[in-house]
Amino acid sequence: MPRTGRRPGNQDTREAILSSARKAFSEKGFDGASIRSIATGAGVDPALVHHYFGTKDQLFTATLELPVDVVKVMTGLAADGLDGFGERLVRTILGVWDSPAGSAAAALVRSAVAHEWTARLMREFLLTQILRRVLGSFDIDPAEAPTRANLVASQMIGLLLMRYIIKLEPLAHMDPEDVARMVGPTIQRYLTEPLK
Amino acid sequence: MPRTGRRPGNQDTREAILSSARKAFSEKGFDGASIRSIATGAGVDPALVHHYFGTKDQLFTATLELPVDVVKVMTGLAADGLDGFGERLVRTILGVWDSPAGSAAAALVRSAVAHEWTARLMREFLLTQILRRVLGSFDIDPAEAPTRANLVASQMIGLLLMRYIIKLEPLAHMDPEDVARMVGPTIQRYLTEPLK
Repeated sequence: MPRTGRRPGNQDTREAILSSARKAFSEKGFDGASIRSIATGAGVDPALVHHYFGTKDQLFTATLELPVDVVKVMTGLAADGLDGFGERLVRTILGVWDSPAGSAAAALVRSAVAHEWTARLMREFLLTQILRRVLGSFDIDPAEAPTRANLVASQMIGLLLMRYIIKLEPLAHMDPEDVARMVGPTIQRYLTEPLK
Repeated sequence: MPRTGRRPGNQDTREAILSSARKAFSEKGFDGASIRSIATGAGVDPALVHHYFGTKDQLFTATLELPVDVVKVMTGLAADGLDGFGERLVRTILGVWDSPAGSAAAALVRSAVAHEWTARLMREFLLTQILRRVLGSFDIDPAEAPTRANLVASQMIGLLLMRYIIKLEPLAHMDPEDVARMVGPTIQRYLTEPLK
């Protein structure tokens, strides 16, 4: 049912679409939500959704207001192959969180821990944007990929939480290169070694 | 300055002491806070603090309202030696979080992520109650113990966050024995293998 009254200005339209998208993605999941239902929820035409946000993937990433294009970063990391991926992942993610973008990333994690619907968005994002794209490009048994990705995600979010939010010492001020050298092998093991 | 007016009943006294203790531990840290200053803050005699809570360690644990006696659990785990400690730690902690006590534990983590002063209490608790007692009983280079404990804590809190709060699948419903077998070696490596 298109909204009546004043035709929404650009910013209003963007916000209406984003809020409808957040609702749809967190209630129906990434695959379950459609551009059409999101457009209807925002009272606009689907073409306008594409006009503002491009693809469904890009709309989904926009709803999380991520400080950096995580998908681009991750696919770039994966493009260099599985060898040494663990250390590169830790170094790169710490690089983002040590930068001004880090506070927005920390806010997202805080919100995901405090609010069930943000947790759902984060879950969907990890599964559809990271797992499918990044692990999909490695020679990893698809049956084991979800478990391996979960284990990687568990170590990464724990590292970020302890270093930037709980601020446990010495981790909070450790040289990122030392952290990458210590935690990289854990990520590598989760991706490459036998699980059982 | 003792409080005037009605002599505080048992529950009032307990709460007054706990709230004074939370303030002191989060502002001055475990070592910096004294029973005397906590008693003064609660308007009671130091002897009454001991009467209600025993030692400073026990008072500190009480301020966190932990669902189980974590120190007792951890020292029990450590008593069986360093060999296999990683798997035992994962199995035991998942056992607590899978039990009714898990929701109180999740609430504490949520609070630590949302509030700086709870984060400080958790930090102090990890450092003074877990690091000193548990790692102190292993033959670990004291200079490396804080880093090793931080790495262990980063994997454990990430595992708990992803399994119980973000509820990432398949980790959220994986058999605890499988999780212990997959994550135990990470804990073991952080405690025993060369860091650099």
